[in-house]
This record gives sequence, structure tokens and C-alpha cells, in this order.
Amino acid sequence: MKLTGKEGYTFVEGGVCAAKGFKANGLNCGLNPNKDKNDLGLVYSETPCHTAGVYTQNKVKGAPILVTKKNLEASGGITKAIIVNSKNANTCNADGEQKAERMCELTAQALGIVKEEVIVASTGVIGQVLPIEPIETHIEKLAAGLSEDGNERAATAIMTTDTVKKEVAVEFVLGGVTCRLGGMAKGSGMIHPNMATTLNFVTTDVAIETSLVQKALNEIVKITYNCLSVDGDTSTNDTLTVMANGLAGNACITEENEDYAIFKDALYIVLMNMTRMLAADGEGATKLLECSVSEAKDVDTAIIVAKSVICSPLFKCAMFGEDANWGRVLCAIGYADADFSIEKVDVDLASENGSIAVCRNGAGVEFSEEFAKEVLSADTIYIRVSLHDGDSQATAWGCDLTYDYVKINGDYRS
Amino acid sequence: MKLTGKEGYTFVEGGVCAAKGFKANGLNCGLNPNKDKNDLGLVYSETPCHTAGVYTQNKVKGAPILVTKKNLEASGGITKAIIVNSKNANTCNADGEQKAERMCELTAQALGIVKEEVIVASTGVIGQVLPIEPIETHIEKLAAGLSEDGNERAATAIMTTDTVKKEVAVEFVLGGVTCRLGGMAKGSGMIHPNMATTLNFVTTDVAIETSLVQKALNEIVKITYNCLSVDGDTSTNDTLTVMANGLAGNACITEENEDYAIFKDALYIVLMNMTRMLAADGEGATKLLECSVSEAKDVDTAIIVAKSVICSPLFKCAMFGEDANWGRVLCAIGYADADFSIEKVDVDLASENGSIAVCRNGAGVEFSEEFAKEVLSADTIYIRVSLHDGDSQATAWGCDLTYDYVKINGDYRS
Repeated sequence: MKLTGKEGYTFVEGGVCAAKGFKANGLNCGLNPNKDKNDLGLVYSETPCHTAGVYTQNKVKGAPILVTKKNLEASGGITKAIIVNSKNANTCNADGEQKAERMCELTAQALGIVKEEVIVASTGVIGQVLPIEPIETHIEKLAAGLSEDGNERAATAIMTTDTVKKEVAVEFVLGGVTCRLGGMAKGSGMIHPNMATTLNFVTTDVAIETSLVQKALNEIVKITYNCLSVDGDTSTNDTLTVMANGLAGNACITEENEDYAIFKDALYIVLMNMTRMLAADGEGATKLLECSVSEAKDVDTAIIVAKSVICSPLFKCAMFGEDANWGRVLCAIGYADADFSIEKVDVDLASENGSIAVCRNGAGVEFSEEFAKEVLSADTIYIRVSLHDGDSQATAWGCDLTYDYVKINGDYRS
Repeated sequence: MKLTGKEGYTFVEGGVCAAKGFKANGLNCGLNPNKDKNDLGLVYSETPCHTAGVYTQNKVKGAPILVTKKNLEASGGITKAIIVNSKNANTCNADGEQKAERMCELTAQALGIVKEEVIVASTGVIGQVLPIEPIETHIEKLAAGLSEDGNERAATAIMTTDTVKKEVAVEFVLGGVTCRLGGMAKGSGMIHPNMATTLNFVTTDVAIETSLVQKALNEIVKITYNCLSVDGDTSTNDTLTVMANGLAGNACITEENEDYAIFKDALYIVLMNMTRMLAADGEGATKLLECSVSEAKDVDTAIIVAKSVICSPLFKCAMFGEDANWGRVLCAIGYADADFSIEKVDVDLASENGSIAVCRNGAGVEFSEEFAKEVLSADTIYIRVSLHDGDSQATAWGCDLTYDYVKINGDYRS
């Protein structure tokens, strides 16, 4: 997928290891019977990290989230490591917290740190007891294999039904020094983040206070991950953490100055591209859908309308069928819980193949069905909605609804 | 589908013609190129009817809804006829209201009534201009063919992607006289009613004041149609009307007495069964899903939780796959926007083949996967949730998410 950048920010390789001082590893410990598929990942910074996190708002919270929150409170937001497994979400289990605690202990022992410095996360099937033995027997090997180029091994360890690994990192200059910020994420179903998203880990060598990492994260999550929906199901295990170890050597960011703005933009670019990757690799997806709502009276209105379009199963099916059935876009705009005048709404459908106006002032306009088919045959479809009611805008990301989504989720748990 | 009744109410044939004094007809006027498929329906009562209606809350409202509301205001809630077409929703068209007005005029002329006594409705593709000629040239024939056994012709005229016609009628005794109440409805996609639902027409010979028909309708819609979701898309044309012509000869109901309660129960039985029919015939559906939430602190909480389960695409796919993936039920309960304690939640899955406990106190319990498969192989699956937080309950209805849903809606508009 083509990444979307901004002047002054260069995309670099390395994912969670792009920033100075971060090592990673991943391996198969046996949770997943497929020995070729990594299922246990580790990220480590010897230098303590100022850490921020956002988590699912689902009332059902994965046990790892409860433990991670407790650890961050105990350590005052300082962490050094992330331990994460796939194949089992360790959620809705009576012994879930105990197992998540055990994962932190094992990791801390292997690394010679304290367990409160460990972020723990799990993803996979909900409601099945997590076997701890495979982790116990592989943690030493996992820690021993940590390396500065281990990002890919970690990124593949968190994949579930994902078809591609998701890593993004950028390099930029802040206060005269070169900094990096990068991360890894996993999708690809049960994605409809609310205040956070599915597993996502960001690392950076920027020196910045914890409270400002958290502030930037909250702002950026609202306009990236929280504008993503694959299927409308808010996961129980959504976790997004940002670890900043300060090794870039910039003057530590302690207020909302220009450096903070540069940091926030870096975070935006990485999370926005990760959001697009997650949408494009939504379960069964063949197309990335990007709905931009402009000329809204405020950002919240724009977000609500954009998400309503992206979430409509009927519109998602129409995009799978490459059918310019714009009435479904209007329908979804119409039931969005926001205040605007439907009679002023314009809609265009676009792609790399061109753009077509399909609706003006809430009513249909004539267009060539043949050209519409060509526009919609692309892999990324842009739905541009104007409310003609102000100057705010927002974008939401989703994907089409396909046979394969049903196949993946209709198949027996595996 | 087996209907669910109540003592004192007998199911009868006749749909919208079950009640005294109602005639109906339906034919193909050419809107649908398939000459074997009726696309224009008419319902008529020579005796004026006290009429109540509820309509979509979508900001995009079909032109027929605007005209019907205007007519009901002008006539003081008195109607005599319903004219309805399928194949074209007459929505998002610049000339939509004009065309809907014309349909009323044509109907009034053919029946010798005034146009404000006509309810008009359309269903089909959004945003395509409605050809009025086929209606103009067939309205006389349609009116001439009205008969007391024409209900099926009308019920088939409103079908779109529906695979079965939907009619329910009951007979009951009220104040010593025999009364009837029946109706017809159409599904089967873009169904997630909010305050009303897709096209649905109820007729009755009960004598009752308009304000009380409306009051009963509002109450019953909340616990029937508004608890139905096929795909989360709230249609632009949702319309549900109840016409009461009083021909049963009962003492006119003018207050909320015992007779009113009997009437309301009849309305509940018909609308609840219609709701189940709509869910069972949801686009592509192979299974009816019925989620009952009990021991909630209030009805609203029970409704919100039940609808959240019914709307979850992941759970809907799991039901298609007959997979007792109850973690997805918990997940959907967890993101329901209501206040309760997830640690007290119990979940059972049941069908005519038996019942299994899958979750107690928010955590999984062991069960036989083999027996679970057998339970889930039935056509109707009951999801029973207890919140252990009060004594209110509610039920929501939906269907599984299947390849055919994607096929029907991914295919080019037709």
C-alpha cells in the first residue's frame, strides 16, 4: 500500500525497531499449531520509556488490559518491554488476570527488569483458557533472540487473520536532532475502535514527558483509529501504547511547543497510515474505502457522518460489487446521528481512475455508469462528501464487505 | 414460520383483508420488467379509517413519506386507501414529491375519493426517477380488480428482495364482538428500523379513536419493529400505518380501558410475528436469531443489549457457521451503550434441539461442542442473556450474515 506522508517526514524501515534503542523478537511457542506462524512477540528498550496508552471502551476488557493499566499506574507510566501473544485473547477467563500477571513476571525475569515495567497484550479467540506452558518454556529463547532488526518477527507474531504484517516508521528532525517514531499493528476483524484500537505498539526515541505523549495520543487516536471500522464490532482487547525512550537526544518536550507539534505530526502520520493498512487488510477485504467529509460545521459532525458511510453494510457490499449505488451513501449519511441539512449534501466517488459526481444538493445527478464502473474498479475508493455547512473536515477508513468476510467468520473458531 | 400467539387470539388468513370492509389488489404495471412480479398494490376501505403512522427517522426521507404525512394532517388522520409500488423508492429525486402527489391523485380519481385520504409508499432503488406512466395506465385496472381476497396480490406487490410474502392476521373478541386485525409487510435489506420500519400496513375493523391507535402503535413499535435489525442500515422509506375502520361494531375505544389493552395485544401479536418474519427473511438469511435479555434494570437497557447482540456482524457470521463462538456475544454485550455489570452476565444458546449454558458471571463455562453444533443446526436460534440486575426484559430479532447477503447487495442495482 502506498503510504501517505508529509514534508519533513521520511518513511523508514524498522517498525518498532526504527527508533534508537528498541529491540524486538518473535517466535512460535506452540500456542499456534502452525510452527511457521509466530505467536509470541517481545519488544524491549533498556532505557526506560515514558509510556502512554489507550484501551478499548468495551465493558468486556481482556485481562491483559487490566494488568497493563495496573502496571502503568504502579510504575508511574514507565515501561521497558511489551510481551504479546496471538491465537488466544485471554479474555472472559476466570484465571485471565493471573495468566497475564504471569506473562509479565516471566518477561521481567528473562530481561532482569521489574514486572511493572511490562506491557502485556493478547489477541485471538475470546473465552478459551490461555495455556501458559508454551510461554513459560519459550520466554528465555525469546529474550535471548532480541535484536535491532527483530521488528518483523514481532510484527508477524501479533498477526491473526491478517494477510500482511503492518509496520510504519518515520524519521524527522526535531530541535536539530534526527528522531524516529514507528510501530506495528494487527487487524483484521472485530475492528470498530472506540477510544483505542486493536493491538498496536508504537516506539520512539523522542524525549518527551509522559503526560504529553498521552495528550498527543488521545488527540491523534480520535482522528485516526477511532475513524476506522471493519465490521462495527468493538474488540475486547483494543490496546495502543506509545513508548518514548528519549535516546534521540532532543531537548525533552515538556510543553506544547513547536517540537510537540512536530512529534504529534509524526504520530499522526504513523497512526493514520497504520489505520489505512488495517482497513485495507480488513477481514476478506478487496478494497480500501476512504470517506472524507468536508465543509462540516465541526469535526465531530464530520467524523460521525464519515463513519456512518464507512460502516454501512449495504454500501460496503455495493463497493465489493463495484456498483455506484450512491443512494446507499445518502441513506447512511441520513441516519448519521448529527445535525446538518441533507438538502445541501454533495457526494463524489473517486479513485486513481477518475472522479464522478453522483449527488448534488441531496438529489441524484446523471453520470456514465460505464465510467463509474471504471472508477470503482480500483483498489482504493474515495468517497467525498460535502455538507456545505462550515469548514471542518474528517476522514474515516473502512473496507468492502465480501464473501470472504463471511467465510472467515462463519468458519469454526480456529 | 411458526407464529407465536396468545390465548384469546386466533390466527386467521386474509392479511390486510382479514378485517371487515377492506379490499385489496396488486398487479404488474411495468415498473418491474418481470411481468410475473406484482409491483403496484392498492388497499381500500369504503368506510373512513382512523389512521396512525410511524416513519423512518433517517434524514433522507422518501418523498412518499412527506406526502403521506401531509395527507394525514390535512384529513385529520382519516384515510381510505393505500397506494404502494415496489422497484423504485422515489427517494432523492428532485421530482419525488410531485410524483408521490400524482400517485395519490390517480388513486383518488380511480376510487372516487379525495387525494388527502390516500397513503402513498414506495420501495426499491434510491435515487432513480420514478416513471409515472406505468402507474397512470394501470390505476383503473388496479382499482377495478379490488376484492376481499386480494390481500395476497397486494402483499406480493410490495416485495423486493423478499423471498416470501409476509402477512399476519388475528381474530379476537372485544366488548362482545368479534374483531380482526391484520397486515402485510416487506423486507428484506436496509432493515434497522428506528421509530418505524420498512413498508408495513395494518388494517383492523376495531372502532377506536385515532389518538389511541397512534399511542398503541408507538408503544408496540418500540418493542417489535424497533428491536429488529437485518443489517444495521436504517432505510429512507420506513413506513408503518394502521387503519381502523370500526366495522366490527364494538363500542368505540376512547380511553385506555380493557378494550384498549385487548386491541394493543392484537397489535403486538401481529407486529411481533411480522417482525420475526422480516428477520427470518432478511437478505440472504438462513437462520432467525432471537435474543432475549432478562433481569435488566429497565426495558431500555434490555433493548439496547439485545439489539447489540443481534447487530454484531461477527456473531451473525458465527451463527451462519453454526459455531458456538459465545465470546462474540459477550463482546457485543460489552460494547452495548448501557449501564450494567458484565461480571453478572449469563448467556445460553438454545433452539428446538436443546439449550446450552455457555457463559456464567461473564466467564466461559465448559460445554459439549458436539451438542452445541446440534443446537445451532436449527433454523431459529434463541440467545438468552440474563443481566441479574432487575426484572425487566426485551427481545430483539435478526438473522445470520451469509454469502448470499453479500451476493444480493454486491450485485449491480436491479
